Amino acid sequence: MSHHGFTEVGAAPDEHTIRVGLLGYAFMAKAHSNAYRTIPYIFWPPAAKPRLVAIAGRTEERVAEAARRFGYEGYYTSWEELVEDPRIDLFDNCSSHHMHAEPSIAALKHGKHVVCEKPMALTAEDAYRMLSVARASGRRHMCGFNYRFVPAIRLARDLIDRGQLGDIYHIRVQYLQQSLHDPDRPLGRVPDPGSSKAGSQAILGSHAVDLARFLVGEFGTISALNPRFLDRRPGPGSTMVDLEWDDASIALVEFQNGAVGTVEASRLATGRANSLRFEINGSRGTVAFDLERLNELQVFLSEASVSDVVGFSDVLVTRPDHPYASVWWPHGHILGWEHAHINELNHFIESIVNETTVEPYGATFEDGYRAAVIAEAIAQSADSGQRVEVTFEK
Amino acid sequence: MSHHGFTEVGAAPDEHTIRVGLLGYAFMAKAHSNAYRTIPYIFWPPAAKPRLVAIAGRTEERVAEAARRFGYEGYYTSWEELVEDPRIDLFDNCSSHHMHAEPSIAALKHGKHVVCEKPMALTAEDAYRMLSVARASGRRHMCGFNYRFVPAIRLARDLIDRGQLGDIYHIRVQYLQQSLHDPDRPLGRVPDPGSSKAGSQAILGSHAVDLARFLVGEFGTISALNPRFLDRRPGPGSTMVDLEWDDASIALVEFQNGAVGTVEASRLATGRANSLRFEINGSRGTVAFDLERLNELQVFLSEASVSDVVGFSDVLVTRPDHPYASVWWPHGHILGWEHAHINELNHFIESIVNETTVEPYGATFEDGYRAAVIAEAIAQSADSGQRVEVTFEK
Amino acid sequence: MSHHGFTEVGAAPDEHTIRVGLLGYAFMAKAHSNAYRTIPYIFWPPAAKPRLVAIAGRTEERVAEAARRFGYEGYYTSWEELVEDPRIDLFDNCSSHHMHAEPSIAALKHGKHVVCEKPMALTAEDAYRMLSVARASGRRHMCGFNYRFVPAIRLARDLIDRGQLGDIYHIRVQYLQQSLHDPDRPLGRVPDPGSSKAGSQAILGSHAVDLARFLVGEFGTISALNPRFLDRRPGPGSTMVDLEWDDASIALVEFQNGAVGTVEASRLATGRANSLRFEINGSRGTVAFDLERLNELQVFLSEASVSDVVGFSDVLVTRPDHPYASVWWPHGHILGWEHAHINELNHFIESIVNETTVEPYGATFEDGYRAAVIAEAIAQSADSGQRVEVTFEK
Amino acid sequence: MSHHGFTEVGAAPDEHTIRVGLLGYAFMAKAHSNAYRTIPYIFWPPAAKPRLVAIAGRTEERVAEAARRFGYEGYYTSWEELVEDPRIDLFDNCSSHHMHAEPSIAALKHGKHVVCEKPMALTAEDAYRMLSVARASGRRHMCGFNYRFVPAIRLARDLIDRGQLGDIYHIRVQYLQQSLHDPDRPLGRVPDPGSSKAGSQAILGSHAVDLARFLVGEFGTISALNPRFLDRRPGPGSTMVDLEWDDASIALVEFQNGAVGTVEASRLATGRANSLRFEINGSRGTVAFDLERLNELQVFLSEASVSDVVGFSDVLVTRPDHPYASVWWPHGHILGWEHAHINELNHFIESIVNETTVEPYGATFEDGYRAAVIAEAIAQSADSGQRVEVTFEK
Repeated sequence: MSHHGFTEVGAAPDEHTIRVGLLGYAFMAKAHSNAYRTIPYIFWPPAAKPRLVAIAGRTEERVAEAARRFGYEGYYTSWEELVEDPRIDLFDNCSSHHMHAEPSIAALKHGKHVVCEKPMALTAEDAYRMLSVARASGRRHMCGFNYRFVPAIRLARDLIDRGQLGDIYHIRVQYLQQSLHDPDRPLGRVPDPGSSKAGSQAILGSHAVDLARFLVGEFGTISALNPRFLDRRPGPGSTMVDLEWDDASIALVEFQNGAVGTVEASRLATGRANSLRFEINGSRGTVAFDLERLNELQVFLSEASVSDVVGFSDVLVTRPDHPYASVWWPHGHILGWEHAHINELNHFIESIVNETTVEPYGATFEDGYRAAVIAEAIAQSADSGQRVEVTFEK
Repeated sequence: MSHHGFTEVGAAPDEHTIRVGLLGYAFMAKAHSNAYRTIPYIFWPPAAKPRLVAIAGRTEERVAEAARRFGYEGYYTSWEELVEDPRIDLFDNCSSHHMHAEPSIAALKHGKHVVCEKPMALTAEDAYRMLSVARASGRRHMCGFNYRFVPAIRLARDLIDRGQLGDIYHIRVQYLQQSLHDPDRPLGRVPDPGSSKAGSQAILGSHAVDLARFLVGEFGTISALNPRFLDRRPGPGSTMVDLEWDDASIALVEFQNGAVGTVEASRLATGRANSLRFEINGSRGTVAFDLERLNELQVFLSEASVSDVVGFSDVLVTRPDHPYASVWWPHGHILGWEHAHINELNHFIESIVNETTVEPYGATFEDGYRAAVIAEAIAQSADSGQRVEVTFEK
Repeated sequence: MSHHGFTEVGAAPDEHTIRVGLLGYAFMAKAHSNAYRTIPYIFWPPAAKPRLVAIAGRTEERVAEAARRFGYEGYYTSWEELVEDPRIDLFDNCSSHHMHAEPSIAALKHGKHVVCEKPMALTAEDAYRMLSVARASGRRHMCGFNYRFVPAIRLARDLIDRGQLGDIYHIRVQYLQQSLHDPDRPLGRVPDPGSSKAGSQAILGSHAVDLARFLVGEFGTISALNPRFLDRRPGPGSTMVDLEWDDASIALVEFQNGAVGTVEASRLATGRANSLRFEINGSRGTVAFDLERLNELQVFLSEASVSDVVGFSDVLVTRPDHPYASVWWPHGHILGWEHAHINELNHFIESIVNETTVEPYGATFEDGYRAAVIAEAIAQSADSGQRVEVTFEK
Repeated sequence: MSHHGFTEVGAAPDEHTIRVGLLGYAFMAKAHSNAYRTIPYIFWPPAAKPRLVAIAGRTEERVAEAARRFGYEGYYTSWEELVEDPRIDLFDNCSSHHMHAEPSIAALKHGKHVVCEKPMALTAEDAYRMLSVARASGRRHMCGFNYRFVPAIRLARDLIDRGQLGDIYHIRVQYLQQSLHDPDRPLGRVPDPGSSKAGSQAILGSHAVDLARFLVGEFGTISALNPRFLDRRPGPGSTMVDLEWDDASIALVEFQNGAVGTVEASRLATGRANSLRFEINGSRGTVAFDLERLNELQVFLSEASVSDVVGFSDVLVTRPDHPYASVWWPHGHILGWEHAHINELNHFIESIVNETTVEPYGATFEDGYRAAVIAEAIAQSADSGQRVEVTFEK
């Protein structure tokens, strides 16, 4: 049927495509798939348009539904087949923690660019293997520390880089949730063997560690506690589950540049839904942030005072001159949690297409490895009661 | 090329489709297009999957780019052709204010369901024509009062509906922006003839009026001021532009149910990026809201006090049992401004597919018409200095 | 008994004294008495040391107790005797509303300086009589608009005076309490005949009116509502009380300088303990304030932005360079509600001793009179539904 | 001269008096003197009326002025004479840190009740001597941890005591000021020899330690850092001063009851005027507090939720049923920083007159001693890098 005046449009002649294969179909897979679908019209014109080639997961019914839901062309039920598929440029690992290392390594060996969710690995040794393969591969690699791409957090980094906070003295960073606060509420599922040791430090603390590194610098020494308040909790049904994880994790840190701070994670912070927050004090200013109000950065700058008008500014980080903001909506039209993932994966795609580095604003496998080393140093100090020096393999 | 183990997926056999034609390619068109693209995997399984058939706009270069950007199959450069296109089920009017009435009426006459952005029309007469045609058409119609679909605002409505605030005494609602605060900053463009009279009341105030009606009830009387602080402002280049619009609009309102309140809009609220806020006091509780923190509702309930723990609760409206929340992310993972549009347009699609009503949670052309009547009553009181009774055509 | 090394001290040889007589023994009498006792060591060296000569009140038992409690040398049970006492320099009228006019007039006629609590009188006519006598007396006179002496409010005034907010466009001022929100809770006492008409406007609204005048300027026109939600309420015991007062009062105001605003008072604002708040938008900045956080002023100044660090500053108004702050505690050691009374009465004593004017920072009987005129204009507009022009006697 | 109807009043026949001698004339002396002068009419009828007998200090000009200013009957220039004066019942030690031990001990030996400002002593050894003498004396003794008497902090304690927070998991307490943040700003004075080692831990940290003990319980183990960012700072004039103090102090703590937390003090927290803040998470609720908003307590109680109205309540702790509130002003009329001192010293006077215990709500010399032990354990862990077990002498 003809429609007078209707002009059909197709892909632009010079449109680049990046072909994505994703492992996993849960929470993170939803966030990443949403990002790939949103990037091409928000970052306009896009560096490349993601083409969702394949998704993989163990349970066919669920992976098939995820493929239909998010628009993947098809699916695999084994990750080995996914990482071998020659049609795929970018492998995205959203599977569970203990499935981060091998699929990512295999994908790199098959020449894929790889983004892997955090914590990158459950041991520093695994993380170092991943990093070594990534370095050798010549491919782009990113560890999914998405909060670096929250505009307010990136603005904090920019203020520090520009020297507007002066010398950094202090950081306090906490990732607080309440999922385990009630000792009587059953766990949703029995933790699988690979992750039963991966507690608050792995799940929440790795974000806190990465932000401290991103904003303040490299860790020097650590004194820590990894408390477990309950050894057994009710599981599904009427079972009781033995637990080996830490319920919380607190590290007292000296940074290599002389700053000091605390880096904390807890899943027993009753009332805190998703509060990743920090305060950083420098000789010329202070910033403070809370993920539950992620569009805002509290900023105190000595230089910004007008006579007696001195105080913390509540900066709504949605102005066109703010990081990652101009592509979105007009000033004052706030962003949500998922937007950091969109900003992050667009950054990764741009790094691939434009052959630019992922760092310093994106986290690489080097950052993922270092977070794993720090997690082990925290555990070591918690066990021994000693202040531990952090050292990284080259 | 064969890929062992790869299973291709297509559309589900029973997948419903709703075919969309959209007029406009600016800010609102971006928000609505984003919604249509997001709905099918967020509201899963979707009531119907939007198929973006055509977009229309005056300037071919821009409408063609918008079509490619947002994935419309093609475009028109005249709205008349768009509204006639038999392939279209749903006509979405995101064009400028003076282009709301005729295209919407034509689309209804061609049997389309119609969603029209606010303010629905620049006169109550035009709005009533639109309403009359809509009523006669048997089609679904919605006026784009998207803020009804902010979860925290819907929660406020639910608390009122359940009687948890008791009898409503007061509302104060303000939509404050700063776009015109600086008398020396040139206007971005010369207001076009059709909209030079459409000032703060039309652009911002209509949202405030609709929220007052949505939350408290129908307007009874109005005393108002529509100040214009500057008759001339610098325009683009070195021109000066004569202005007929109101810079701000403030109405003192008696509601039909006995509540009283103020309904205000201003584009001279220096420092306020996008602050649509309200406070409602009832005999048993109070709610307060600000769009710059749209995930939060401040709630005071007499019934919620535990002995001496009495105060306003800062409710983060992202729990699975909160309105429009369960489809998104886990609790504490906040939503952005655009999500209200996604929730809104999904609601409209569901009303079409499931043959449910748009009201009471969505705004219909009846609501668009009533907002237009109220805008005229405000102007009339501002001119005459008299308290004006609001009356609507049946 | 001799104490080696003990040096007795008495009054400084040049110590000035101001002799105070106070009428009333309730809430305000407590606040004022506290002020007189605190002034001499906080404002050091004091302009004059208050000597508490006499207190007066109807009920001997209560006035005698008040005298002992607050350290008055003695008491009267009739105000007529108090205002005649030649030992008294300063008459302080803290009695109930309908007892403001005659005792204040009599005291002025006996040559006392007079401070009278607000609302200064229940009618503009009474207020004008008070003003006329005050003018003729040559004595200092002050109306107890104590909130002018909250440091953060005075800072707001200073910012406006210095032009840092630019031209003023908007004010919204509200005094919200919850004392009457529950229709079933009995009134503490039956309103006495003289004050049964004095409702929210007199009790709370007069403060809001004065702040609008203090900060923005003189009222031009008013459109208003004075709603009474309940004509009868339960009284003490099982009685029902007929009521003539307004439960709330809302005025829409054009100021003489072109600013517009709303001035509101309510005792049905559930959950609001004592929220006197305002926001003022000017062409170059905005200030916002809430009495429940009276040490803070939210300030947005266009001039204060450092590149992309733009936002409202939360100014803790306790720095030594802030108004009324240097005599108190170090920065960050916040003040309470009562401190405004102390600052206010010290200002009045200084105006007497140093022969300086009470205005512009203190309110005189002129301000008390004008607030009374405005209250009547509000009532007139509420009754008639007309916008009313405010006019003052010379 | 006779005044018809004037009735003179004197002291009540049964009025108790407590005779105060105070050492010091600086900031704390002002706060304590203000308290003694305010107590008798705020806590009405008072347990006893403070009679300000004598004040002592080294510099005659200053101590004489302080005596006249605050109304002491006379002064001494040596503390030895003050503590011997038989007219004195209560010795109040507001002198500098290194002058806390000997005068307090001497006063106890002369039979005085003693309140001593914090930190009680600069060494645990001195503190233990003070405690031993206090125990032997049979007199009341209090250490000036005034923040226990902030109504909101006491409410936090009450919630914990009642079990409304459940089992305590976490505390984070920080006392943040900015006095040293600028490395170029000269120190106001050269620290005197006795206090050059007394840094952030002594000045601020002792408050943080006491609050952690007051709210959560006794310390078990400590891992700590006591950083000094600058060894030399500009002093008065153009001198440079060598420094031995800690600029900040951070302790990672296991409490004896299993809770874990961080206890921190810093004088380099740019922008923080006087922010003593804490958050405590328990299995059933959370409280959070900041001294810069000392009238408010943020409270999350699982039990307080009404269906989907779940969040932190901002409790304005000024209701008559709140701790220390009923004697002051009506609800919503906030208190200032100084009021905690007034509440505290009234508590001490009541404990003397009524022969009640100072604990558990007031701090005794036992608490002062334990804070000193903890300060030394912090220093020891900071030096050694080892987790240290805290042990107290009996």
